[in-house]
Amino acid sequence: MKARVVVTLKNGVLDPQGKAIEGALNSLGVEGVASVRQGKVFDVEMAGADPAAAKAQLTAACEKLLANTVIENYQIDL
Amino acid sequence: MKARVVVTLKNGVLDPQGKAIEGALNSLGVEGVASVRQGKVFDVEMAGADPAAAKAQLTAACEKLLANTVIENYQIDL
Repeated sequence: MKARVVVTLKNGVLDPQGKAIEGALNSLGVEGVASVRQGKVFDVEMAGADPAAAKAQLTAACEKLLANTVIENYQIDL
Repeated sequence: MKARVVVTLKNGVLDPQGKAIEGALNSLGVEGVASVRQGKVFDVEMAGADPAAAKAQLTAACEKLLANTVIENYQIDL
């Protein structure tokens, strides 16, 4: 079973990396970019066929490793 | 206008980071994880209201900066 986990910064958390990308895009001549915020995406192959069990394991994975829940949100798509 | 750009490794390209995450998840007791591949996600705020123009600019942004098109694919969602 394929799952996708997207981890993004919470609103209000500064994103220096995103700011750097904005500046670089402007200097590369890419117009119209008002703001950029970078996050992580994990494409996870889960064994078994039970979506509920997979979601529970992926939630544990996010809480323990994939996301820093103090400053990041995570979203699990099965 | 909000857009999301997802950059992932092409099939067949080794992902040592993903392998490391797999190992860590197993050792943290998260079960059922067969494989993990990590990518990047960019939440971009575009000025203007023309989706076609925004898509063209975002494609240029991916080709120039956000993705290494030799080993990565990118997907633009407006």
